[in-house]
Amino acid sequence: MKRIWCEWAWLGGARLEPGVLLELEGERIASVGAAVTAPAGALALPGYTLPGLANAHSHAFQRAFRGRAEGAGGDSFWSWRELMYEAAGRLDPDRYRALARATFGEMALAGVTAVGEFHYVHHDRGGRTYADPNEIGKAVVEAAAAAGIRITLIDTCYLRGAAGESLGEVQRRFADRDAEAWAQRVEELAGWEGLGAGARLGAAIHSVRAVDREAAATVAAFAAARELPLHAHVSEQPRENEECLAEYGLTPTALLAEAGALGERFTAVHATHLSDDDRRLLGEAGACCCLCPTTERALADGIGAAAALRAAGASLAVGSDSQAVIDLFEEARAIELDERLASGERGRHSAAELAAAATVDGHAAIGWPQAGAIAPGRLADLVNLGADGVRLAGAEGASALDAIVFAATAPDVANVVVGAELVVGDGAHTRFDVAAELGAAIAALGSAP
Amino acid sequence: MKRIWCEWAWLGGARLEPGVLLELEGERIASVGAAVTAPAGALALPGYTLPGLANAHSHAFQRAFRGRAEGAGGDSFWSWRELMYEAAGRLDPDRYRALARATFGEMALAGVTAVGEFHYVHHDRGGRTYADPNEIGKAVVEAAAAAGIRITLIDTCYLRGAAGESLGEVQRRFADRDAEAWAQRVEELAGWEGLGAGARLGAAIHSVRAVDREAAATVAAFAAARELPLHAHVSEQPRENEECLAEYGLTPTALLAEAGALGERFTAVHATHLSDDDRRLLGEAGACCCLCPTTERALADGIGAAAALRAAGASLAVGSDSQAVIDLFEEARAIELDERLASGERGRHSAAELAAAATVDGHAAIGWPQAGAIAPGRLADLVNLGADGVRLAGAEGASALDAIVFAATAPDVANVVVGAELVVGDGAHTRFDVAAELGAAIAALGSAP
Repeated sequence: MKRIWCEWAWLGGARLEPGVLLELEGERIASVGAAVTAPAGALALPGYTLPGLANAHSHAFQRAFRGRAEGAGGDSFWSWRELMYEAAGRLDPDRYRALARATFGEMALAGVTAVGEFHYVHHDRGGRTYADPNEIGKAVVEAAAAAGIRITLIDTCYLRGAAGESLGEVQRRFADRDAEAWAQRVEELAGWEGLGAGARLGAAIHSVRAVDREAAATVAAFAAARELPLHAHVSEQPRENEECLAEYGLTPTALLAEAGALGERFTAVHATHLSDDDRRLLGEAGACCCLCPTTERALADGIGAAAALRAAGASLAVGSDSQAVIDLFEEARAIELDERLASGERGRHSAAELAAAATVDGHAAIGWPQAGAIAPGRLADLVNLGADGVRLAGAEGASALDAIVFAATAPDVANVVVGAELVVGDGAHTRFDVAAELGAAIAALGSAP
Repeated sequence: MKRIWCEWAWLGGARLEPGVLLELEGERIASVGAAVTAPAGALALPGYTLPGLANAHSHAFQRAFRGRAEGAGGDSFWSWRELMYEAAGRLDPDRYRALARATFGEMALAGVTAVGEFHYVHHDRGGRTYADPNEIGKAVVEAAAAAGIRITLIDTCYLRGAAGESLGEVQRRFADRDAEAWAQRVEELAGWEGLGAGARLGAAIHSVRAVDREAAATVAAFAAARELPLHAHVSEQPRENEECLAEYGLTPTALLAEAGALGERFTAVHATHLSDDDRRLLGEAGACCCLCPTTERALADGIGAAAALRAAGASLAVGSDSQAVIDLFEEARAIELDERLASGERGRHSAAELAAAATVDGHAAIGWPQAGAIAPGRLADLVNLGADGVRLAGAEGASALDAIVFAATAPDVANVVVGAELVVGDGAHTRFDVAAELGAAIAALGSAP
């Protein structure tokens, strides 16, 4: 593939450009020009083309219990977490690889070209280390390669159940002995030849619940020394704040700031229950906040003050997180829509700002600053939506961005290009039957490992 | 079509039944039996089959400005309303018929088999009466018939801009001279031969803003005498409550109760900003509350206390309302998901309760008690979802209802049966190209009428 012609392309800003011709060099866009019609030999993308979407916060294995954790009867985030642990307990490296490959395939179909996999199921049952201590992490990276999308394996430090609370049975699979052991394991992973063009490494402090102050500082220093993206779940639930205040007299954000975690490579995931001071800290650091609105709805987390975060100086990204649904258009518009519910006001985030969260800013947050925009020098990662479906019917070419952000859904994705390779064509994955593999991978989890 | 075989069918309750065979008599289900495989000659519906969905609150013409009213810059419900008036001003009967037919076609593709069209654009520009005073209403009914779905034309009384406020330019198209003139016009419509098997009549008080106390009583008496469903927009915005309290010293619900509107045939649309007393009134009356969550998100209305409404005795229905999206799965799950955001609790509404809102209770609310369930004597109106797509992959037959309600989207609809006729087959409308007609109908509105 040397040339791609887009009937309409979003190059940033409020409007789409007609007739955009991309000349490629290897995986990259060499030049962006104009052409009224598709030249011979070019891949022609009718409809609307955007930079590929960045899914900046994912737990791939949680796809296995979509539709299995919605029971009525007054449950909570915390009872949901028990169900999640049960699913995590049934995983082994091969099952994980198969499930992640199918889940990343579903992401590709939804237009995701890079995923930030917040990975914490490191070890075998009982916390036993595999012969290769990074066996599952490597399986996850291989799964993304097999599904044709880029990945940042955000290797997550997890050490305790909560302040003063020992690890539960399943949580032992998540935990390294201490932060130094975590760093040693990740150091090994960093030298793995499986990382490279399509896969990068990131680091994470699972949360201030699961990682104490000193350990958080160790992880932050490790990430800083290697210039890795550093992520953490931050203030997803009020109880996390209460426990952190009780333990340290600090909010989770303030604690992470003290630990040296905040900065331009830092991403606070959720950032739901923040104080004004928290937002100021994140904004002044130039950090990113990754909202996962469909999961925050599903887990009854609440509505974060996203406009205030942007006003404070933070950027925004989006993630499918629990995989309750995999649809970054829904995530992006939900930033604005849920804030409308909370505020009674409309128009806090423009379609262009929401699209930037799902593309350029999300890619930056997971360590792919070369992706996320249709511009010379950027990676040729693209998502193309048909203009001939019912949801976008009536949208007008140049001004279709509002309709795309506020009405498109994953099934409107027609074609996906990753590094000049067509990974999704005419709405189908070019490599494998994603639905069949999802069904098989999830069915396999029904039996004891 | 004499027999329909469903691989899995939802007959009510928490689980789906395998191998369900429906024997039909005309438009109705004569019997519901069991069959492991599809008998010869039966229409075979693989995957999951539910009763057809009832879209209990729709303004078809608002489909024309999907993606055109999302501008940033601190706007509100009230500025959105000005944009809506602009669109309404460009309509004429032929344009309306074409736009409604295409919009109802999109609804059919989303599994809607009956729509409650809350219709208030009655007259020509300047409020001039058409030669047939019900010309647009009849066009809307014909549009539903052309799109293959049932309709209840909920003819809406609209008399004033607000308390003490005269009608705006476009609002004059909505208004009859007074409630008696409204009743006279609807009386004529009731005798029209176009109503019948697929089309019924309902009545509506637009809102306590647009209809004063005495007029509301006239409309309520008219609806009661003819046993029509009676709908009203109720407490969508705090300002509506404030104005009603200022005018009457009563909440909108209390005012409607005084006017004799409440009862089992009454549906309060939105019911967002209610008091405990309001909920008690609605519950004791056995009324329905039609929530339109995607519109309530889009218009920054807020989150209604749906579980408290059910606890008080009201039933729930859902509507696509502004057509920001047309997806009743999204509406149904949003009742629970948005309440999770507001409450911090999960599991206030089970999947079965949410599915009932979108089917049996929604149909009852718009005057189709014969539809909305797969049972002997009911209309053979069905929606069938493929089990082979990525969103429902991994769901297990009998226990798939959670996945359907919480993860399915309109594009998962494979087949739709209305009165034993296949209206949607393999995801395509069997009568016309819906997207093309939507595009043409919306483009036509771009020029002056």
